[in-house]
Amino acid sequence: MTRTRFQLGLDELKEKLLRMGGLAEQAVDRAIEAYSSRDPEASEKVFRGEQSINMVEREIDELALDLLAMQQPVAVDLRFILAVIKVNADLERVGDQAVNIAERARDLAGLPAVELPADIPRMAATATGMVRQALEAFIRADADLAQQVLGSDNSVDRMKREIEAAMMAQMKQSPASARQALDTLLIARNLERVADHGTNIAEDVIFWVRGADVRHLGPGTPATPLP
Amino acid sequence: MTRTRFQLGLDELKEKLLRMGGLAEQAVDRAIEAYSSRDPEASEKVFRGEQSINMVEREIDELALDLLAMQQPVAVDLRFILAVIKVNADLERVGDQAVNIAERARDLAGLPAVELPADIPRMAATATGMVRQALEAFIRADADLAQQVLGSDNSVDRMKREIEAAMMAQMKQSPASARQALDTLLIARNLERVADHGTNIAEDVIFWVRGADVRHLGPGTPATPLP
Repeated sequence: MTRTRFQLGLDELKEKLLRMGGLAEQAVDRAIEAYSSRDPEASEKVFRGEQSINMVEREIDELALDLLAMQQPVAVDLRFILAVIKVNADLERVGDQAVNIAERARDLAGLPAVELPADIPRMAATATGMVRQALEAFIRADADLAQQVLGSDNSVDRMKREIEAAMMAQMKQSPASARQALDTLLIARNLERVADHGTNIAEDVIFWVRGADVRHLGPGTPATPLP
Repeated sequence: MTRTRFQLGLDELKEKLLRMGGLAEQAVDRAIEAYSSRDPEASEKVFRGEQSINMVEREIDELALDLLAMQQPVAVDLRFILAVIKVNADLERVGDQAVNIAERARDLAGLPAVELPADIPRMAATATGMVRQALEAFIRADADLAQQVLGSDNSVDRMKREIEAAMMAQMKQSPASARQALDTLLIARNLERVADHGTNIAEDVIFWVRGADVRHLGPGTPATPLP
C-alpha cells in the first residue's frame, strides 16, 4: 500500500464530503421552496432525497474506516479523518432538519394560507450559509473562516427569537391560525438547528486545525494545509 | 507499544463513554426535575453541568485518536472506535437537549403555574430509557437489544403527538396560557430528540456489530464481543 494510494483516498473522502454538503444544502433549499410555494411535491422531493443522504453518509464512514485500516496514519491524518466523520454526521443531521421543515411545509400547504410576520427564507439563507462557509473552512483548513461562522450564530438566534415572539403573539391574537403560527415557529427552530450544525462543523475545523498545529508544528506556525 | 496497552486503552474508552452516558442522563433528569419542581436552581445545575459534558466529550475524542495512532488497529477495533466517536457525539447532544429543557423549565418557573394535560415525566422516562438501553447494547455488543430500542421510538413519537395536539388545543382555548403550553410542547419535542439520539446510538450499535460480523466472522456467527 503506497502513500500515494492513501493520499488518493483522502482526496476521495474530501470529494464525497463536499457532495454530502451539497446534498444537505439542497435538501434545506427544497424544503424552504416547499414552504414558500406551498407545493407538496417539493416536500416529497426532500423525503425521497433523504435516502441518498443516508447512503452517502455510510459511504463516507466506510471509506474513512478503509483509510484508517490501510496504513498506520500519522496523527495529522488521523485528526483529519476524525473531523470528516464528525462533519459527516452533522451534514446528515442538516438533512434531517430539511425533512422536518418539509413536514411542516406540507402541513402548512393543507391549511388556509395566512400572512405571518416571519421572514423564513432570510433565516434559511443565513443558516445554510453558515453550513456552507464552515464546510469551506474545513476544505481549506482555515480556522479564521471557521471563527467567522461562529460569529453568525448570534444573528440566527436573534432571528429565531424574533420569529418566536411574533408567532406567540399571533397565537394569542388569532387562535384560529395558531397551527400555522406554530408550524412557522417550528420551522424557525429547525433552521436554528441547521445553524447549530454549522457551528459544530466550524468548531470541529478549529479543533482539527489548531490540534494539528499544536501537535506538529508548534505554536505560531500557520495552519496545516489539507492532506 | 504492546497489544495489552492498546486493550487497556479500549477499556478506558469504554469506561469514559459510560461516564459520558451517565452525565447526559443525569442532565435530562435534572432538567425534568427543574420542570416538575419549578425550581430555577435545578435549571442552573444543568447549565453548569454542560461544561463537564463537553470536557468529557473532548477527552473521549482525544483518547480515540491516541488509540488509532498507537498501532495499526485491526478492522474490528477500528469499527469499535468509530462507533465510540459517533455515540459520544450523540450523548453530547442529549446533554444539549437537557439544556434546552432546562431553559424552558426556567421560563415556566417565571410564569403563573397552569395545570396542563401533558405527562412530561413519563415521556422523559421513556426517552432516557432508550438512551440507557442503547448504551447498554453498545457495551454488550448486543444487536438484539439495540433492535428493541428502535421499537420504542414509535411510542415516544406517539406521546409527542399527543402532547402536541393537547397543547395546540390549549393555546386556542386559553390564549392567556399559550406560553406555558408552548414551553411544554417544546419540552416534548426536546424529549423526542433525546429519543432520536437513543435511536441513532442503537443504529450505530447494529451497524458496528453486524459490520464486525460480516467482515470477520461471516454470516450467521454470533456478534463479536467487545474488544
